[in-house]
Amino acid sequence: MSVLIFDSFLTTTEIIDVFDDAAVIEAMLQFEQALAQAQAAEGIIPQAAADQISAHCNVRNYDIAAIVVASRRAGSMAIPLVKELTKAVAQADKDAATHVHWGSTSQDVIDTAAVLLTRRALELIDSTLLGLIRRLLDLAGQHLNTPVLARTLMQPAQVTSLGFKFTGWAAPLVRARTQLRTVAHRALQLQLGGAVGTLAVMGNKGPAVVKRVAAELGLAEPQSNWHTQRDEWVRLGLEVAVLAGSLGKIAKDLSLMAQGEIAELAEPSGQGRGGSSAMPHKRNPVSCMIALAAAGRTPQRAAALLANMPQEHERGLGNWQAELAEWPGLFISAYGALHALREAMDGLQIDSARMLVNIEALQGLVFAEAASIHLAGVIGRPEAHRLMEELTSQAVSSRQQLSAVVVAAVKTDARLSGKIDLPTLEALFDPVVATACAANLAGAQLSSLQASLA
Amino acid sequence: MSVLIFDSFLTTTEIIDVFDDAAVIEAMLQFEQALAQAQAAEGIIPQAAADQISAHCNVRNYDIAAIVVASRRAGSMAIPLVKELTKAVAQADKDAATHVHWGSTSQDVIDTAAVLLTRRALELIDSTLLGLIRRLLDLAGQHLNTPVLARTLMQPAQVTSLGFKFTGWAAPLVRARTQLRTVAHRALQLQLGGAVGTLAVMGNKGPAVVKRVAAELGLAEPQSNWHTQRDEWVRLGLEVAVLAGSLGKIAKDLSLMAQGEIAELAEPSGQGRGGSSAMPHKRNPVSCMIALAAAGRTPQRAAALLANMPQEHERGLGNWQAELAEWPGLFISAYGALHALREAMDGLQIDSARMLVNIEALQGLVFAEAASIHLAGVIGRPEAHRLMEELTSQAVSSRQQLSAVVVAAVKTDARLSGKIDLPTLEALFDPVVATACAANLAGAQLSSLQASLA
Amino acid sequence: MSVLIFDSFLTTTEIIDVFDDAAVIEAMLQFEQALAQAQAAEGIIPQAAADQISAHCNVRNYDIAAIVVASRRAGSMAIPLVKELTKAVAQADKDAATHVHWGSTSQDVIDTAAVLLTRRALELIDSTLLGLIRRLLDLAGQHLNTPVLARTLMQPAQVTSLGFKFTGWAAPLVRARTQLRTVAHRALQLQLGGAVGTLAVMGNKGPAVVKRVAAELGLAEPQSNWHTQRDEWVRLGLEVAVLAGSLGKIAKDLSLMAQGEIAELAEPSGQGRGGSSAMPHKRNPVSCMIALAAAGRTPQRAAALLANMPQEHERGLGNWQAELAEWPGLFISAYGALHALREAMDGLQIDSARMLVNIEALQGLVFAEAASIHLAGVIGRPEAHRLMEELTSQAVSSRQQLSAVVVAAVKTDARLSGKIDLPTLEALFDPVVATACAANLAGAQLSSLQASLA
Amino acid sequence: MSVLIFDSFLTTTEIIDVFDDAAVIEAMLQFEQALAQAQAAEGIIPQAAADQISAHCNVRNYDIAAIVVASRRAGSMAIPLVKELTKAVAQADKDAATHVHWGSTSQDVIDTAAVLLTRRALELIDSTLLGLIRRLLDLAGQHLNTPVLARTLMQPAQVTSLGFKFTGWAAPLVRARTQLRTVAHRALQLQLGGAVGTLAVMGNKGPAVVKRVAAELGLAEPQSNWHTQRDEWVRLGLEVAVLAGSLGKIAKDLSLMAQGEIAELAEPSGQGRGGSSAMPHKRNPVSCMIALAAAGRTPQRAAALLANMPQEHERGLGNWQAELAEWPGLFISAYGALHALREAMDGLQIDSARMLVNIEALQGLVFAEAASIHLAGVIGRPEAHRLMEELTSQAVSSRQQLSAVVVAAVKTDARLSGKIDLPTLEALFDPVVATACAANLAGAQLSSLQASLA
Repeated sequence: MSVLIFDSFLTTTEIIDVFDDAAVIEAMLQFEQALAQAQAAEGIIPQAAADQISAHCNVRNYDIAAIVVASRRAGSMAIPLVKELTKAVAQADKDAATHVHWGSTSQDVIDTAAVLLTRRALELIDSTLLGLIRRLLDLAGQHLNTPVLARTLMQPAQVTSLGFKFTGWAAPLVRARTQLRTVAHRALQLQLGGAVGTLAVMGNKGPAVVKRVAAELGLAEPQSNWHTQRDEWVRLGLEVAVLAGSLGKIAKDLSLMAQGEIAELAEPSGQGRGGSSAMPHKRNPVSCMIALAAAGRTPQRAAALLANMPQEHERGLGNWQAELAEWPGLFISAYGALHALREAMDGLQIDSARMLVNIEALQGLVFAEAASIHLAGVIGRPEAHRLMEELTSQAVSSRQQLSAVVVAAVKTDARLSGKIDLPTLEALFDPVVATACAANLAGAQLSSLQASLA
Repeated sequence: MSVLIFDSFLTTTEIIDVFDDAAVIEAMLQFEQALAQAQAAEGIIPQAAADQISAHCNVRNYDIAAIVVASRRAGSMAIPLVKELTKAVAQADKDAATHVHWGSTSQDVIDTAAVLLTRRALELIDSTLLGLIRRLLDLAGQHLNTPVLARTLMQPAQVTSLGFKFTGWAAPLVRARTQLRTVAHRALQLQLGGAVGTLAVMGNKGPAVVKRVAAELGLAEPQSNWHTQRDEWVRLGLEVAVLAGSLGKIAKDLSLMAQGEIAELAEPSGQGRGGSSAMPHKRNPVSCMIALAAAGRTPQRAAALLANMPQEHERGLGNWQAELAEWPGLFISAYGALHALREAMDGLQIDSARMLVNIEALQGLVFAEAASIHLAGVIGRPEAHRLMEELTSQAVSSRQQLSAVVVAAVKTDARLSGKIDLPTLEALFDPVVATACAANLAGAQLSSLQASLA
Repeated sequence: MSVLIFDSFLTTTEIIDVFDDAAVIEAMLQFEQALAQAQAAEGIIPQAAADQISAHCNVRNYDIAAIVVASRRAGSMAIPLVKELTKAVAQADKDAATHVHWGSTSQDVIDTAAVLLTRRALELIDSTLLGLIRRLLDLAGQHLNTPVLARTLMQPAQVTSLGFKFTGWAAPLVRARTQLRTVAHRALQLQLGGAVGTLAVMGNKGPAVVKRVAAELGLAEPQSNWHTQRDEWVRLGLEVAVLAGSLGKIAKDLSLMAQGEIAELAEPSGQGRGGSSAMPHKRNPVSCMIALAAAGRTPQRAAALLANMPQEHERGLGNWQAELAEWPGLFISAYGALHALREAMDGLQIDSARMLVNIEALQGLVFAEAASIHLAGVIGRPEAHRLMEELTSQAVSSRQQLSAVVVAAVKTDARLSGKIDLPTLEALFDPVVATACAANLAGAQLSSLQASLA
Repeated sequence: MSVLIFDSFLTTTEIIDVFDDAAVIEAMLQFEQALAQAQAAEGIIPQAAADQISAHCNVRNYDIAAIVVASRRAGSMAIPLVKELTKAVAQADKDAATHVHWGSTSQDVIDTAAVLLTRRALELIDSTLLGLIRRLLDLAGQHLNTPVLARTLMQPAQVTSLGFKFTGWAAPLVRARTQLRTVAHRALQLQLGGAVGTLAVMGNKGPAVVKRVAAELGLAEPQSNWHTQRDEWVRLGLEVAVLAGSLGKIAKDLSLMAQGEIAELAEPSGQGRGGSSAMPHKRNPVSCMIALAAAGRTPQRAAALLANMPQEHERGLGNWQAELAEWPGLFISAYGALHALREAMDGLQIDSARMLVNIEALQGLVFAEAASIHLAGVIGRPEAHRLMEELTSQAVSSRQQLSAVVVAAVKTDARLSGKIDLPTLEALFDPVVATACAANLAGAQLSSLQASLA
């Protein structure tokens, strides 16, 4: 375990392991090995030396804690690792040792290692995200015609379709997945520039070595080194922050709908999940908690990436280091949120009866607009509006359902009586009927989202 | 002038005008007009009503300050404007007034207005950015072979090509321009959903109205309303923040190279620009100042956009408003930086002689690595490394140029004398020769960047 | 009006006016006048010159828009103002003009102006804050014994006292007021250091001039200039951000309790306040909206202040300017929140009947813990706990009030029957009784808070 | 080691250990023990039970990794620990187990644990900060009369005293230390409120228990629980961020003065510290790197604390957890910076000869203002200003020292010749003379700072 308890309790072991100290060192060694082999293939260093170097690029041979401590004095994690690797190679072959890390610089190996780990983190995100999207689209399909209150400014507003809410949650996740892949395609690139980014030590073979190392590691070949040009890398981090924001939106809605007084949705329960022994009526929305915590933290990490972009000259002082230090937390936190919400959605408890109860509690006022439009067909919009205002306030003060008040009024109003079909009018107060527009829109969007996943 | 002096002095009038109160109201009226005409075309409201509404969508008819004050009580800028528009239309045609803003909601008109203004802001950014990129690529082409110190961790490191630095500055701007266009293509979309995003009032004609309004305003047609799904919009804001970061990187480098003690580059002078009457030797880098100020502020605005993404249900309480309030400043600040740096680059003063002086002041130590590699061809890498360490410390203590020390050593070293061609060795200490690798890389990148603009 | 509409609609005219362009220029002239008079008093410049300068320190004589534009080229707002002031004085007295701004630097006048405006802003905050605190303490006093649901992790938890909630809201505001005063006492200090902070031009009379100017302006005398040592100033900004956070907490609670389905509290209505003509059942919590928007923005402004603290040498490049540009928004936004919440609290609608309804809807489960403790007195804690779990789940499945289930169980349980006094047991399910502990704590805190205001 | 390598390499083992998982659990157990003993003393639970509980509050008895994993499901670190503690106690004494964590809630134990760890972190900060302050004041005392260039907007401006720079660095640290102590005094308070903060389970003995537990743990007694009123706690975090900002200012200056081309100050070298084998002329300022990295990260953590202040009702959902997760990093990062700068200052290399060289390179232009004032005594300020402008541009174009040009001009100018004492005039160009004002101010401030430490 390599993050503090206050953090680790909000995420999963698998994502923490991605950025584990040993994983970092292992990825750095992967770079050194690929570099040596590429240089041998280009005739810059002897093949035998490359093979000796490769043979020592095994993370289990190194004392990771000692490297961390030494890196503080050196101001770089790479310097002590390269020193240890060189020492190890030298014990086998003194000459081969002079070819270790040849023509490379600390930032090459550290950035490339970060890229390799990030790729793994993105794989975790991608597959969990796909699972969550599929689940939300399934739920949307099942609930296109389930009426639920739409709420604006935290007040009940009108009736919508629960499926419409679910597609609304899913769409940003589909976009996030597409964007993460697109940006990763550009940002997961090799870092290799040598001391000041010019590949000078490798002479005119530099570009060929870059091509080989990138191919070997399966990374994009950079147009140039990006030691202090961090824009593509930062964009990738920002996409993760956007994902966390969209997950936070879902968690916000879910937590509001799960309030005891609203009780339309609930996270799954059981096996020590969000329970409270002292308060048996409580079911704490712990997945929402995790996702909201992530959404409350990732914006600041995104800001840190942006704030540290103006890096000096050919290697930044402090800002590069700050950026890297903020990086893993972004993924650890966002993945924690994603994983938690997937768990919540997989076992989501939907109380559509309660949704109807909550609609009814509003005495049909949420249908006033539809009724007004209908009456306007006979008496014109201004008069219909005026009348509905009157009937609405009558319903409120008498605590009656608005439908009853309106039907009674139509019957006694000479202008309307006989011209308004009462069953048609009453249907306007039917939540399922009111859901039709939303259901249609959601159905179309659902098809489009499903198609985009195929 | 509609931003505070502390802000406005860091940007330009043209970008401030984009987000001016009157411009906001004008864009809102543009939406109302397009909506009315689209609804008339679809037969939802009478054409005569649409024409009356259009006739009153003229910003000069409205008391903007009064609308702002009324919007505080209402909690929305749209409510008082719609009220005023309705009142104006009613004076001409009472019935037409009932069709104002029909089936729409405050957020539709406000978000769409923000989109329309943002499009103008992006046009300003795009053209100024293109100008800056072209200038940087020109400078790169002129200075491929100009030697300049590369610096890492704020220390002189080795020699690079000034053209390499310029392409390094330009490349992120080229990417920023491409990304801004790509993201804008998606994010500059119509907002139109009605009260809770379901277009319910327009029945099955909702989608057709959306299509018409989007076409009329030249905006992308949204797959669904995005009242509380802000991801595409936020991505656009984040791209602006990334641009500000890349501009900040340029300003950081330029300000460091313009320090009196380094004096390799300088911002243009003249006409009250950055002068100091009391200190005639000073030339303050005011463009850098503006760009660095922007880079020190935009990360926080980006964080604000992200932090406000978890918006409640179908309309957010506070977070939507916070996001919009942060939005214009992002563009105002970033454009100020862009404009300032373009001015700086247009009149950039390049002192390549001073660059050579700064290189020479390091006594050739920056070429030690190249010399070591050369000697290694004869005596092997470990011995060459050992020897160069000795000669380097000798050069430092005797305050001699390293080239002289090395040549003298080669002459007297039996292993090297005769085997090392002295003119070849001396050429390794020539800054221009040392620039070759960087110049080649920069040349290739330059072609590629130029091609991407064509 | 001098802030953009998206901002100004979330605050009040009085706080915007504090930071108005004209107010800034006026404060700068106030500094120049005080400086000239102090220097005359110390014999550094002639009294006649000081009087001429004073005579021209009238903001109405200057073209503010022109100064803003000129300040962009100069990189400083002070340079063009000082030039205009000098020009104006010169027309009256050529010699006097040479004494304008003597021994001072741009940052002296700009920082001091910012301090003067901030003092006014803090006065607005202080008095409105006091009003809000008093109102909350009054409400607390009135509602010490009003039962209301306490909620944890957004789930109903147990019963508390409404007065306890109100004192909980008020206490951080009382602390905020105290801290703002304490920090302002230190941070509202004169800035006066001259070109590089050493007061060199004034020779050994520098400290005396500082003392006089500070006294004249009613500001604290700085121990040294604070051109690039911004800690005290930043602390003041951070206190405002803390206040916004505490206001956000109130708005968060209020908006949750005002949800239609909970309906325990409501913002005042009437006169275009938060209404919705289409949806008559809606009462939008617009004060909460404003306060939450502020709480969603001020953290980022605080971060900007902190991020810009590492200012270079004796005057920062970009960071000082960024800090000042972020500064007014912090106060404008926080005061908007404060003013809005005061309005909300002044007309707060409290539905204590609904609070009881919401408690009852939980079937007495929130009293399970109290009942368990009571039964434990007879059968021990483990057995009481086990029994209550059983009865609780029985109440849930049978949709009965827990009190009835428990009373029935006690009657038929041989271990308990006769040993448990039934009226005492039933009282444990009385919300008012359950409120006693909270009411006592709140009462004590209320006295203490009231005393601290006296 | 319990933070990721990218983080841990920027700080020290001792501060990481403070927030180690085991340390967190240990502090939580400390709370449980103190709670049990206090309740026994108040007669709420049997003394024997309290003693049993105390006997099991030993961190070595618990499987920390398992607790972390369990806490994810539970949504709280406290729930699994309390369960394990209860289980352990139950094995010894079944009845005693029912008294574990009695009347307390998860947040009580977690917040109090965070407070206890923070106290330790502050002790580390306090003593290291004192050491750094003392060192800076010593350096200031030694260098009151050492001339060095003052620089504004990153350009050489005038001459100041190196001691003045050092007191300028030290003063904010002295204030930081005072403020940290003051705020800690308030913020390091016990958290104890029970389920919803009302201490209801403990009846009227709640306040007495609070008093006892606070005394036992040596913490401040809270006026009320602060479950969702985080202002005092957040203020403490913000003070740490302010400290990081002031450290960042020092690092910014030091790194600029340590640039190879300026070379006035350098970090200590030796033992793998900041070296570069390939580039022997490089001495990387690694302490500055660490401090700047901290200053680039802590503002965002501060923003996270503020952004998460609006916590819902009686326990926040996600925001409390986010705040705690951000908390340790703030201290770890700031302490890393503090420790690094102390190391840098302890071995700081000061090249006062180079400082003079840098002054001289400006050809005396930095003294032009002083000369102008002197000449004004004879020919009036306007004429003196005009003349000096002429002479200055003459010095620049002829690459002469300004002093020589001015002396020559005085000799041949009829108005000045004989009226200006040449040695006095020449002294104005003496850097040490020019330092006098700064030295006086610094001397006074130094005495005051020293006194405040005593």
